[in-house]
Amino acid sequence: MGSVTVGSYLIGRLVELGVRHVFGIPGDYVLSFYAALERSPLAVINCADEQGAGFAADAYARVNGIGAVCVTYGVGGLKLVNSTAQALAEKSPVVVISGGPGIGERRRDPLLHHKIRSFESQLDIFREVTCAAAIIRDPDSAQRDIDTALAACLRRSQPVYLELPRDLVAAPLEIKPGTEEAVERDEAALEEAIAETTRLVTTAMQPVIIAGEELARFGIVDQLPALLERSGIPVATTTLSKSVVDETHPLFLGVYEGAIGHETTRRYVEESDCLIILGATLSDATLGINTARLDPALTIASSSSQTWVHRHMYPQVTLVDFVKGLARALPSRARPVIANPARPPAWQPEPAEPVTVGRLFQCLNAFISPETTVVADVGDVLFGAMDLVVEAWDFIAPAYYLSLGFAIPGAVGVQLANPGTRPLVLVGDGAFQMTGMELTTAVRYGLDPIIILLDNSGYGTERPMLDGRFNDVVPWHYARVPEVLGGGRGYEIHTEGELDDALRTARDDRSGFSLLHVHLEQHDLSPALQRLTALMADRVRAGG
Amino acid sequence: MGSVTVGSYLIGRLVELGVRHVFGIPGDYVLSFYAALERSPLAVINCADEQGAGFAADAYARVNGIGAVCVTYGVGGLKLVNSTAQALAEKSPVVVISGGPGIGERRRDPLLHHKIRSFESQLDIFREVTCAAAIIRDPDSAQRDIDTALAACLRRSQPVYLELPRDLVAAPLEIKPGTEEAVERDEAALEEAIAETTRLVTTAMQPVIIAGEELARFGIVDQLPALLERSGIPVATTTLSKSVVDETHPLFLGVYEGAIGHETTRRYVEESDCLIILGATLSDATLGINTARLDPALTIASSSSQTWVHRHMYPQVTLVDFVKGLARALPSRARPVIANPARPPAWQPEPAEPVTVGRLFQCLNAFISPETTVVADVGDVLFGAMDLVVEAWDFIAPAYYLSLGFAIPGAVGVQLANPGTRPLVLVGDGAFQMTGMELTTAVRYGLDPIIILLDNSGYGTERPMLDGRFNDVVPWHYARVPEVLGGGRGYEIHTEGELDDALRTARDDRSGFSLLHVHLEQHDLSPALQRLTALMADRVRAGG
Repeated sequence: MGSVTVGSYLIGRLVELGVRHVFGIPGDYVLSFYAALERSPLAVINCADEQGAGFAADAYARVNGIGAVCVTYGVGGLKLVNSTAQALAEKSPVVVISGGPGIGERRRDPLLHHKIRSFESQLDIFREVTCAAAIIRDPDSAQRDIDTALAACLRRSQPVYLELPRDLVAAPLEIKPGTEEAVERDEAALEEAIAETTRLVTTAMQPVIIAGEELARFGIVDQLPALLERSGIPVATTTLSKSVVDETHPLFLGVYEGAIGHETTRRYVEESDCLIILGATLSDATLGINTARLDPALTIASSSSQTWVHRHMYPQVTLVDFVKGLARALPSRARPVIANPARPPAWQPEPAEPVTVGRLFQCLNAFISPETTVVADVGDVLFGAMDLVVEAWDFIAPAYYLSLGFAIPGAVGVQLANPGTRPLVLVGDGAFQMTGMELTTAVRYGLDPIIILLDNSGYGTERPMLDGRFNDVVPWHYARVPEVLGGGRGYEIHTEGELDDALRTARDDRSGFSLLHVHLEQHDLSPALQRLTALMADRVRAGG
Repeated sequence: MGSVTVGSYLIGRLVELGVRHVFGIPGDYVLSFYAALERSPLAVINCADEQGAGFAADAYARVNGIGAVCVTYGVGGLKLVNSTAQALAEKSPVVVISGGPGIGERRRDPLLHHKIRSFESQLDIFREVTCAAAIIRDPDSAQRDIDTALAACLRRSQPVYLELPRDLVAAPLEIKPGTEEAVERDEAALEEAIAETTRLVTTAMQPVIIAGEELARFGIVDQLPALLERSGIPVATTTLSKSVVDETHPLFLGVYEGAIGHETTRRYVEESDCLIILGATLSDATLGINTARLDPALTIASSSSQTWVHRHMYPQVTLVDFVKGLARALPSRARPVIANPARPPAWQPEPAEPVTVGRLFQCLNAFISPETTVVADVGDVLFGAMDLVVEAWDFIAPAYYLSLGFAIPGAVGVQLANPGTRPLVLVGDGAFQMTGMELTTAVRYGLDPIIILLDNSGYGTERPMLDGRFNDVVPWHYARVPEVLGGGRGYEIHTEGELDDALRTARDDRSGFSLLHVHLEQHDLSPALQRLTALMADRVRAGG
């Protein structure tokens, strides 16, 4: 234990918590920590840009339960503000590690390169986008700073920020006995909430569960099937939680998103007289731009913060305990027969027909297999993807914060977190131009995602709201990107026949990424997006 | 005047101050303002990624005197934190405009997409990286908010942040008489400072001026030649202010950067018994990693904040007045004969020889012409570029904040700000992989920068400090990027002959960008970088 340093202690804790890869780009303020990482069990994953590293770490954390990104001060750290904000908003437990000027040189030199306003500026910025943030200021406080941040990261499933001054990386650290944080639990309140919920479910005609993304974030996705089996209650998800339930489950109602989603799902959920919302963030984005009609007087909603039953709140009752309690207590009831609206029709290509968005997703529904993880970017790819039928926790997308450019670096994170999976990336042309070259990272580390690039020559979700030249995206020859990167294979897709052939070839080609450039008619939209944009256009014109 | 809205008022003020182009990417919270921009005299410049838009606006502002970038809320705004921090640190007057949720919907909906922690989060973050930041909250305060921010932007030559909720874009605004901010001037203090400086210069044996970047930021670069002519005092610049003086001027000493720069420059500056520093940010990066030996007891330093003479300070005396005062008051003295150390030797290619960094810069010195503006990224390209001899204000680089990836989008900003110029971009492979695809914007708007891509297979400035696989950058076939972008032309350069031919062809080819992929030996460094890294390695190993 005599040889533990601040750097090696941080690395050891990350390993202990299940981190295996650290995404990032080195820089002089973090070089000595990078050298320590290279000597450690953690694999450094070099990305092309810090933005890509941030998105990759976010996706990795969603699959792995915790992720890490490590960059230099200022020029590295501040490029991670957006991806970290997304991780905060969507509860992804990312540990952001930034190198920093040495404590000694901060005192001596008022002006060091990469400095912003003060040496506290970056910390202050990260306080806004993390649930815990600290500069490690000396070896004596290092263990507490690190332990506190990592505990918050896991407890809240949100990002944390640790700034490691370069003169502390090798500073010896004397490990003290850790102080376990006592979890406050109010068993009586839990029992009361469970009993009340059980009573309401028992007398309800049409109870429905909305399964949210927090079930995945807090590691209780596995408990859901038993809860459904026992209770026989049908379940819906949201755009953000899509796939926390195996979508082939006979009790699966579909993705609920107000008037944007399927009518059968909407009707069944909104006609429920007992709605149980488990860990779902309900926002304008997930509630069909406020077209949802959910009655709080008929709703039970449990999250990682508290539990509501109708108009009263149990401040001490939180999601994990509540779900476990329900799994024990809910009565068994007859399963209703429900129609899953997204059940795909059999796919039969019309070889000479141009590809349309609607048909593309039908084709992909036939293509995906149990080893597929769908990673969706933002735009029509996300709306269209709601019609894919995927198994449990095989769908990753930033469906609330909605940052374009997530999916390509996200796929890198997903496949490193779970090498048994094959990412199927859905990305638009606008998003690809932001971060698509992060495919270089897939080449570097031998990954083989299949990318479906939907090219409609612009920001297609915006055109129906308010159009102008500013919605145009310059056409690229995306299929030639592999020639620049020296890896992967590109395909030009105009027809259903080409699509079918390319997918078959890509499935068998495990030598690198496959990039399918799907040419679409500019104004071709998925049915969901047609419904959405009609609603959004009214808002844009009315100025919100 | 009856038809003025909050949106059109902001646009009108930007036009009035000399903005002609606004860089950015649209999104739903800013769509209606984009539509207003499209109807206005301002040209919208769509970029591939917000990061590129931020760097382009920064470069544009450095050339044009003010620049603007406009993006959507959260997912757009937070991608600009890093480029805005650079603008703050290096005094670049960029107006950051972010769309935002409508004031009405903020009240009604606690959870809107793209939201971070609270509706104030983005404002709070931008307070850290701007000199003025505001959310426009109602039409009555809009004029004051806009005028205050724009005044601060120009007065301090630093970025400002304006958040425009989408329901206010079309809100009518009643223009009130503007309140001119009274500039506080202390004429007596100015006279005293000028008299004292004049006395010191008169009795000095070897006075030297260090001309800083603030001379350009505050629009007084033009006054410098007269000051030099009159006073006969030799002048040096810093890495950040390189080219505020025409480098062919007979009084030009070179770029001063402590032990990293040329020995003749260092000696002349450090032996001065009267050093006049005009608007220069002196940091570790500009002072040769603290190898500079400047004696405050012999120094006069004027900036936009105050003026120091030796150990006393004139709080009310600022740069512009001080320079104008000196131009009036300084006595004439005999010009010393000095040797400009960077004077390039004649270039004669050895056609079969592999290109080295040192020879490359000799070749470029012969290539650049009065119409060239050099835009340098970070890394050895920046150190090597110090040996280029350029005319006044023809060199742009983020030489203090040092954010990799600046130069390609920066060149887009430079050429739009000054269509008479031809950018010569110096960029390394690591930086190119971050933002190089922003060349798509050059294609879109018919720009023709010449890009010299120095490929040494990694983060070459870091290898000599502390090396590992993390310093490797994946090789790309950069010369094939034009095939992906559908514009521009690529060149593979291994030898001096190929370099010479490609430059000649590129000079005559005004049809689009030219991208010269210069293959270098991995450990080939510029002489300046060799000196620098030896110094930095000691610091990294000592932990700062």
